[in-house]
Amino acid sequence: MLMIPGPTPVPESVLSALSRHPIGHRSADFSQILAQVFTDLRWLHQTSHDLLVLCASGTGTMEAGIINCLSPGDRVVVCTNGKFGERWAEMCDAFGLKAERISAPWGEALNPELLRAHLEADSQTPANQKIKAVILTHSETSTGVINDLETLSRHIKAHGALSIVDAVTSLGATQVPVDAWGLDIVASASQKGYMMPPGLGFITMSPKAWDAYKTAKLPKFYLDLGKYRADAAQNTTPFTPAINLIFGLQAALTMMREEGLDQIFARHARLKAATRAAMRALDLPLYVEDDAIASPAITAVMPQGVGAEQLRAHLKQWFDIALAGGQDDLEGKIFRLGHLGFVSERDILTAIAALEASLSKLGHSVKPGAGITAAAQIFLHSLS
Amino acid sequence: MLMIPGPTPVPESVLSALSRHPIGHRSADFSQILAQVFTDLRWLHQTSHDLLVLCASGTGTMEAGIINCLSPGDRVVVCTNGKFGERWAEMCDAFGLKAERISAPWGEALNPELLRAHLEADSQTPANQKIKAVILTHSETSTGVINDLETLSRHIKAHGALSIVDAVTSLGATQVPVDAWGLDIVASASQKGYMMPPGLGFITMSPKAWDAYKTAKLPKFYLDLGKYRADAAQNTTPFTPAINLIFGLQAALTMMREEGLDQIFARHARLKAATRAAMRALDLPLYVEDDAIASPAITAVMPQGVGAEQLRAHLKQWFDIALAGGQDDLEGKIFRLGHLGFVSERDILTAIAALEASLSKLGHSVKPGAGITAAAQIFLHSLS
Repeated sequence: MLMIPGPTPVPESVLSALSRHPIGHRSADFSQILAQVFTDLRWLHQTSHDLLVLCASGTGTMEAGIINCLSPGDRVVVCTNGKFGERWAEMCDAFGLKAERISAPWGEALNPELLRAHLEADSQTPANQKIKAVILTHSETSTGVINDLETLSRHIKAHGALSIVDAVTSLGATQVPVDAWGLDIVASASQKGYMMPPGLGFITMSPKAWDAYKTAKLPKFYLDLGKYRADAAQNTTPFTPAINLIFGLQAALTMMREEGLDQIFARHARLKAATRAAMRALDLPLYVEDDAIASPAITAVMPQGVGAEQLRAHLKQWFDIALAGGQDDLEGKIFRLGHLGFVSERDILTAIAALEASLSKLGHSVKPGAGITAAAQIFLHSLS
Repeated sequence: MLMIPGPTPVPESVLSALSRHPIGHRSADFSQILAQVFTDLRWLHQTSHDLLVLCASGTGTMEAGIINCLSPGDRVVVCTNGKFGERWAEMCDAFGLKAERISAPWGEALNPELLRAHLEADSQTPANQKIKAVILTHSETSTGVINDLETLSRHIKAHGALSIVDAVTSLGATQVPVDAWGLDIVASASQKGYMMPPGLGFITMSPKAWDAYKTAKLPKFYLDLGKYRADAAQNTTPFTPAINLIFGLQAALTMMREEGLDQIFARHARLKAATRAAMRALDLPLYVEDDAIASPAITAVMPQGVGAEQLRAHLKQWFDIALAGGQDDLEGKIFRLGHLGFVSERDILTAIAALEASLSKLGHSVKPGAGITAAAQIFLHSLS
């Protein structure tokens, strides 16, 4: 039982689609599948922009966003408040971009005012030396913080820079209305809110992003999005696609359309609220205290008096439930419970019950049933 | 029924492995799977070099080979005798490499003497301006020609340049002994001889290739092979791997080890010989006349008096057998019958029987049973 922030649980219908015999990717049958997938992905991303599917991980997909719109020496702002923000800063270095960091401590949200002030100060810079893009992570998987993307995007638009957004753990779990928020480039990956195994990347490109593409000088071939755009218009791909993963994606998107966008987001909000209520009832300190900046995809917990790794090992051994550990500086200090994608109320109750039992077993004093009761209360309220 | 040069047919055990529920890619269980996969892949590639697995198509994997060892302005030789050679030349242009082409007409093999002379003439060039790499395609999927990689590699070694080899349709179908032939960089993809759906790329790097890596200046991050090498040593990957495709690969490699390398190559040789004998018996002109340069993976046929596309449409409609068409200039002129990966003698007999029936139906005079008889003769001989 996977309760980690990716790969997430995968429904039977998707697993079964994955095992269909491949068909030729240049056939009319496959083009028909791609056409449906493109339509459904646009619905999920709430966009009329180009939406392209890559055979790459989330990192490869973010790289595509960066190298298709920028040139060596371009100034960019990288917003970092966790491991993934740091990764995008490293990537900018690798491509010879001049990255200016706007940071918040791990576990805190980015302060939109800092970005606004930074960009306003840049407004007087001559056009050819201005900040070209702001790279930011919507939901920080390493800490369970969600940034205020809507406000951040407004400040970016006021300045005129491009927004390049890592929405890997937010897309499919919460609102990422690409067009309404005016997001230029949004990258995500299949093993998160899409209820799929990893292997596919998704990226949207606004008309402004395509304008930047015209003059972007970073070299590219496999990740040259212009090639994907031209072929997507014909419901095909420039290079051999991961055919079986596309079969799975088609099945997953069909399920998502049946559930409905609002229902999907409401479910994630319920799972988050129930998980957090349970942790509080069990006296397990939440790594992110403020509900308003807590991710709907993942909850990080910093247990006291019992080791995070000990707890994880116990849950794995006795209940076959996988929780994620902390990364980098947080290694051994937190555990992370993923509740995104194909996760139900029942799964949360199961995980909390196992957590309670493990805490008891490890000598941590808990009021029996306290976590379960708190979570169930949330479900009762939201379902009534 | 897929008789195209990729995706190829996929065995049941592989399809079934693809549909297993994903496990965490940072778990000990997954590392164990990766360890076995790395070992089996080295066996198949006959190499002790680093062998890395990417989440990318064959094109992305070839790009990794090129950008990890070269710098802008470097001189390279690109050998082209078909569509894929042309693609690597375009890729070199995209990365600012100075590509010198050595070409043979489509349907003919590269002349190793041309390469030898070209490289010898370069030997007097000052070291820092010398040709850095030779990029070549082993089996040209677009024409069904196999180049004499062993001899070509010998000339490259004599000069001192790196060899960067597209072995996409040769690996797993015929001998590509990476170490014995002294190949520096060899790229391939899962949907060919590996009996897998597409989505994974494989690349080997010789010690000399790693030397070049140290000074290579083309920018990279997602395809930075140094990251993959460091993580492969710990049986993990720098970025989220395509977990379910790795499950499938494990099953496919297990089948290959059970069959044995020599047996796999002998089977492909039989399928090629039988297919070619059948085409000759049916008076269907082979696009590549000379058996010695005909690919063991694919046979291209240029029918006269009946349209290649008409024939393909008939086989698809009446027998649900997919053959590939011609590409670029060969569109509408040839059909290509793939016989690589999970293909048996029975499949060849089936395809030929259907081809005979279609030829008759389309008014092409054929001696009934001639193709089947010729193919069966080959099987009889080789199995005795």
